[in-house]
Amino acid sequence: VSGRLPAPQTLASLAKQFDLEFRGDPDLPITGVCTLSPGRQGAIGFLANPRYRPQLAGTLASAVILRAEMLSEYQGAALIATDPYLSFARISALFEQVQVQAKGTDDSAIVDATAVLDASASIGPHAVVGARVRIAADVSIGPGCVIEDDVVIGAGSQLMARVIIGRGCQLGTRCRIGPGVVIGSRGFGLARGPQGWEDVPQLGAVRLGDNVEVGANTTIDRGAIDDTVIENGVKLDNQIQIGHNVHIGRHTAIAACVGVAGSTRIGANCLIGGGAGIGGHLDIGDGVVIQGWTMVTRSLEGPGQYGSGWPVEPVREWRRQVARLRRLDRLEERVSRLESGHDSNHEQEGD
Amino acid sequence: VSGRLPAPQTLASLAKQFDLEFRGDPDLPITGVCTLSPGRQGAIGFLANPRYRPQLAGTLASAVILRAEMLSEYQGAALIATDPYLSFARISALFEQVQVQAKGTDDSAIVDATAVLDASASIGPHAVVGARVRIAADVSIGPGCVIEDDVVIGAGSQLMARVIIGRGCQLGTRCRIGPGVVIGSRGFGLARGPQGWEDVPQLGAVRLGDNVEVGANTTIDRGAIDDTVIENGVKLDNQIQIGHNVHIGRHTAIAACVGVAGSTRIGANCLIGGGAGIGGHLDIGDGVVIQGWTMVTRSLEGPGQYGSGWPVEPVREWRRQVARLRRLDRLEERVSRLESGHDSNHEQEGD
Amino acid sequence: VSGRLPAPQTLASLAKQFDLEFRGDPDLPITGVCTLSPGRQGAIGFLANPRYRPQLAGTLASAVILRAEMLSEYQGAALIATDPYLSFARISALFEQVQVQAKGTDDSAIVDATAVLDASASIGPHAVVGARVRIAADVSIGPGCVIEDDVVIGAGSQLMARVIIGRGCQLGTRCRIGPGVVIGSRGFGLARGPQGWEDVPQLGAVRLGDNVEVGANTTIDRGAIDDTVIENGVKLDNQIQIGHNVHIGRHTAIAACVGVAGSTRIGANCLIGGGAGIGGHLDIGDGVVIQGWTMVTRSLEGPGQYGSGWPVEPVREWRRQVARLRRLDRLEERVSRLESGHDSNHEQEGD
Repeated sequence: VSGRLPAPQTLASLAKQFDLEFRGDPDLPITGVCTLSPGRQGAIGFLANPRYRPQLAGTLASAVILRAEMLSEYQGAALIATDPYLSFARISALFEQVQVQAKGTDDSAIVDATAVLDASASIGPHAVVGARVRIAADVSIGPGCVIEDDVVIGAGSQLMARVIIGRGCQLGTRCRIGPGVVIGSRGFGLARGPQGWEDVPQLGAVRLGDNVEVGANTTIDRGAIDDTVIENGVKLDNQIQIGHNVHIGRHTAIAACVGVAGSTRIGANCLIGGGAGIGGHLDIGDGVVIQGWTMVTRSLEGPGQYGSGWPVEPVREWRRQVARLRRLDRLEERVSRLESGHDSNHEQEGD
Repeated sequence: VSGRLPAPQTLASLAKQFDLEFRGDPDLPITGVCTLSPGRQGAIGFLANPRYRPQLAGTLASAVILRAEMLSEYQGAALIATDPYLSFARISALFEQVQVQAKGTDDSAIVDATAVLDASASIGPHAVVGARVRIAADVSIGPGCVIEDDVVIGAGSQLMARVIIGRGCQLGTRCRIGPGVVIGSRGFGLARGPQGWEDVPQLGAVRLGDNVEVGANTTIDRGAIDDTVIENGVKLDNQIQIGHNVHIGRHTAIAACVGVAGSTRIGANCLIGGGAGIGGHLDIGDGVVIQGWTMVTRSLEGPGQYGSGWPVEPVREWRRQVARLRRLDRLEERVSRLESGHDSNHEQEGD
Repeated sequence: VSGRLPAPQTLASLAKQFDLEFRGDPDLPITGVCTLSPGRQGAIGFLANPRYRPQLAGTLASAVILRAEMLSEYQGAALIATDPYLSFARISALFEQVQVQAKGTDDSAIVDATAVLDASASIGPHAVVGARVRIAADVSIGPGCVIEDDVVIGAGSQLMARVIIGRGCQLGTRCRIGPGVVIGSRGFGLARGPQGWEDVPQLGAVRLGDNVEVGANTTIDRGAIDDTVIENGVKLDNQIQIGHNVHIGRHTAIAACVGVAGSTRIGANCLIGGGAGIGGHLDIGDGVVIQGWTMVTRSLEGPGQYGSGWPVEPVREWRRQVARLRRLDRLEERVSRLESGHDSNHEQEGD
């Protein structure tokens, strides 16, 4: 287990690798990335949001990634990018130190004899790999992971520590699964029997496309009859709960703590804010944007922006608002009385 | 570690096993279950909700489970049931392939010499079993589980991968505990001391009755002085948080992402929707139904249905609603002014 | 793995250890703690909240911790404290039986040769400790924990079972990290690229101060550029999500199921109720108290109390309130019409 050491970089070497123009000393060494404020000597920052323009003047950064039209506002070394944030993301990857596991299977891992592992795959300490599992090239299975029978994991996928992939589930290529994630837990299927609840067996699996990210301690239930499906390029943050038979379309991104109840379809290219709750058996269209903590109790057409919820107030004011909301029926009655009084007034006047 | 292969079934064999009438070829092979739409050849579907009646015509299913009064609307092979969903649940169990562990203790598991394990129990790879633990017949402890000292686990209970059961906690018979579950974590007990927070020791345990289900990554805290108690037949979905000294009555079912704060009592046969938040020191009566995302800040009498929350709107409309709610005080004043003006009007008219 | 046995105590031994006055038989044996109602013979209870004063009469407790002014209301043995709850917390610690690991490294743990462990540290079964990790005196690393490369853990810190500490993160002294916790997961950093989402590398770490508590299955993301910081004495309950670059000030306590989005600063001595959601890039002042389930979408000045949310109602009443809220625009229009009618009325009268 060892980290990757970043290669030495200069302003010119970064410009060349990422196909960018630059201004300044080509041999300026760049040893890392930083925020603009305060910035850090030797590091490169970025300006994407014009709101942070005032930070250019005082930054300690040795260079800045910015748009061509900003060059006149800054005198220092610069990389010129049409999308400074995206270029920053790609450049900062050069300086990322990630936990890397040795190729091959750790002596303490337990791998079923019928599992088929590519020679380039890495199986970490104390991992458990079940029967007939297929693990493709360059897959990394972190310490303590449990991969149940008949799972298929596509090339280049990375499972961090203590991930559980339930029996028969499938992951595409280049997925990244965060620590503590559970994929393929039982869906919450219950039927009322004469003696109490009886289980409804959950016969489906979970299928993840390519380039899917799943954040720490997120859970994705297996389908009841058919599979739960997460399409290519979907990005899920931490502590999300995805119920059985949910279908999430490609490139949709969901922030932390969202719950999606069973059998709901979420379209492609949606953005769902943290803490939102999405009911079961709903249809959320392509390109829907949902604000954080929204309570989604009906299907939503896309594209479109949706929200709900009661924004924070000082406690006293909030309590008054609750009280006012509760007497809104009486307020309506008072207005109705006024209207009929007023009308009768008018009538009298009309006499 | 290996899956169970489903036995071959026919229409007549299913009818016989589940004590149902049937219509059609008794030797019709049934190889699995399916949804009505589109259905699948060789599989059996079901019709419980009359809303899906139109799907009968086009289904590819080879047979359907339905009520006697629906027989006239469908020409194909059928099983006749008074509760089609319940019969479907039981039949589909025949086709479930579950992860099954070998009996006995895996070589990589670490079991304290003072633990007492039934010979039929299964202790998975890398599991850890503490001192004086008692594990009854047919219990399955999944890979990576940690069972602390003095835990008692009743016959037939199944712990999936990476479950943690804290010191002194007790599980009844036939419980099913999902992957990543934590039972018996420290309750959140704090007292203000002169130098900051001091711990309030959590001396209680957690006691689960029989047939309790706990979903993936759910957490149940141990009691502060007395125990946290989950009664027989309670069903908890994923990512639920149960605080210290909570008491949940039998056959109550709670959907995912619910939080229950400390010392609250929830009655029997309650249904609590996903994402609901239930405050501490409350009393929720028997048979209470709580809608998803409800904010429960007071005790609730049962039986009864309760809800709260602001349902989703287009963002622009939601923002306008927030603004209107905030000027509700002024609206009330305006109505009061109108009323006094109106009254004085009347008085003038009465002059 | 074995529990600690409580030492025998008497009324006088407790009084002496905690510097309290007492009334009653100094040799009265105290074998544990209890609640006042019903209480338990041999155990000591406490009265802090005057609301529970009526329980004094019927308690089975053999002694009670209370304030001097309450002595006249109770005839039994008593310890006299200025803060009965705090004294109770300290006394009950004597009777706590905790899971204790043997010193040293379990044979099944895998520790990198470059890790530096104090001789008094305890590394549990199946734990994994990475390269260059430094573990100070009296640290306990529970079963199945994964400590990635370059982590530093301060003296006396305790990690329960299956904790994950990501590469380069730092914990201060006497921290307590609950089961299933993930510290140092990847922040949710994404940039739109030409082919879909691209990762924004997360180069920061997580730094915890001294005496920090983190509850079961809570997740704390590493920073994008700088670190995520949790200061001394912060107490986090279960299933909390802390986004990248969040900063939480000292002695702030956060109840279960709270989500804090990225780059938000929370001040010192705040109290945040369960289920609250706190948006990104906000500034929450020192001494802010936030009610449970509040939706925090803007910065809040401290000190002060804040809340929001729609408290529970019977379903029928809640649905009516929603309908009324939705026609509030029309109610405003009706009032405006009345006002103009009324005014024109007045004008007419003024003619």
